[in-house]
Amino acid sequence: MPGVTHSEPVAILVDGEPAASLNALDRGLHYGDGLFETMALVDGDVLWAEDHLRRLAQGMDRLGITGLDMPALHAEMARLAEGVARGVLKLIVTRGAGGRGYGPPGGISPTRVLIRYPWPAPPAGVMEDGVRLRCCETPLGRNPRLAGIKHLNRLEQVLARREWEERGIDADIVEGLMFDEKGLLIEGVSSNVFLCRGDTILTPRLDHCGVRGIVRQKLSEIATILSMQLIEKDIDRGGLEALLDEGAGLFLTNSLIGLWPARELDGRAIPIPDAVRRLQAALARQRGVS
Amino acid sequence: MPGVTHSEPVAILVDGEPAASLNALDRGLHYGDGLFETMALVDGDVLWAEDHLRRLAQGMDRLGITGLDMPALHAEMARLAEGVARGVLKLIVTRGAGGRGYGPPGGISPTRVLIRYPWPAPPAGVMEDGVRLRCCETPLGRNPRLAGIKHLNRLEQVLARREWEERGIDADIVEGLMFDEKGLLIEGVSSNVFLCRGDTILTPRLDHCGVRGIVRQKLSEIATILSMQLIEKDIDRGGLEALLDEGAGLFLTNSLIGLWPARELDGRAIPIPDAVRRLQAALARQRGVS
Repeated sequence: MPGVTHSEPVAILVDGEPAASLNALDRGLHYGDGLFETMALVDGDVLWAEDHLRRLAQGMDRLGITGLDMPALHAEMARLAEGVARGVLKLIVTRGAGGRGYGPPGGISPTRVLIRYPWPAPPAGVMEDGVRLRCCETPLGRNPRLAGIKHLNRLEQVLARREWEERGIDADIVEGLMFDEKGLLIEGVSSNVFLCRGDTILTPRLDHCGVRGIVRQKLSEIATILSMQLIEKDIDRGGLEALLDEGAGLFLTNSLIGLWPARELDGRAIPIPDAVRRLQAALARQRGVS
Repeated sequence: MPGVTHSEPVAILVDGEPAASLNALDRGLHYGDGLFETMALVDGDVLWAEDHLRRLAQGMDRLGITGLDMPALHAEMARLAEGVARGVLKLIVTRGAGGRGYGPPGGISPTRVLIRYPWPAPPAGVMEDGVRLRCCETPLGRNPRLAGIKHLNRLEQVLARREWEERGIDADIVEGLMFDEKGLLIEGVSSNVFLCRGDTILTPRLDHCGVRGIVRQKLSEIATILSMQLIEKDIDRGGLEALLDEGAGLFLTNSLIGLWPARELDGRAIPIPDAVRRLQAALARQRGVS
């Protein structure tokens, strides 16, 4: 997102070695044949590391990537987190290097890339005042085989983000909503999206596209504790408008931002209901990041 | 395809330098943010280099990748082609290295990766006897923004190719047909697909997914010369069966194989009509590769 991107990394490990480069035959480069996780570093620890690694494992299972050296990965993550008060840790796991052609060859091992970036300063005032949003034009293709997991095929998100430059969109509009090819609301370019009406929270189903965010999972637990209900629902553009007409709140989550309430979508003002404030505060307490 | 993959490369240039590695921050790795071409080397030249570079340029235009050093690329391609009787040249062009987040940062230059592989020996007898095919289960997502171009987001093809291993499919079945999320026939995993009935050649439209192959373009020119007609058509599974019931021939093309007639699809025998033989012979003459 504008204002939280383009930071220079401060440390890189490739298969455990300090390195700035990667095998040119890696299948991550050739086919996007791999997965990634973006994690928050808080007080020397990787926040929700187990959840991130569980999602990674689900993705590896889906793609049939085997043989990742988990003890080594754990040690490398701890090494890059150590002594860091606030930071970002990006993990890329690819199927490995080799093979000309789509068929994965036998006998290759997954590649581990860990990159630590500085903690991004959120745009001023967003936690209190909320963010401005827009709807992106770039659609998301639907494919159940790739839905939910955080794989490396991210051109749709890159194209959505390029709309800012192509259309001269105000950098103060920090995120965009994406819809699938059928016109269903799915997610933000780099966040999950929620609508809040009374004690009910609605969020798109992600079984045909989109990424199942870690904070999205956490929010489900928090909602239960707060006696709220999180429901997955198909929401098209008309449905979104209707919910906003009824005074619903809108908010975004991801592992770095936590929860951002929205105050505007395509120029339309959106209220920030008390329920959103309660979720935001509960999530901040659970993350230990304000 | 089985039998034509997994060859060890014989030369690599990264931005013109002999190198086996690439910047770990390259956006090709992080997002599949780039394009590729797979070209045949014939008698010291890159076959149909202009056509490949034209498609690359179309892809760069679509993705908004600018600043590729074309004179350097031409020189590097010639350098790797020089003196090579038969070979494969794979070109990867990415948006460049840098940026945490999907938004492309300013001031980065595209990365050029050129890899020369040995010429693959085709499975014995396929040019004469035809190949065995199957229908893949992995669907192709539909996205007009990504259709037609040869971008680096290729997990769908990787998953389709993995079906051989997952389902214990005979390696003698060398290619699979892929259908989109709506059930329309689109292409082979690494080829374009055609049906031939009398003097009419049918091929799927590729405006929602699929790659517009160079041989596919050439075939359109050849068909005209041979007084045949190439028509783009929506073909679903029922339509495919109906065409086969009528005795239509089926064939595949790509830059390395040229044209392979099919003799079998999911166990069903397919005739190889004379028209397919004429197209195959004309294409072989034009390529200068038998």
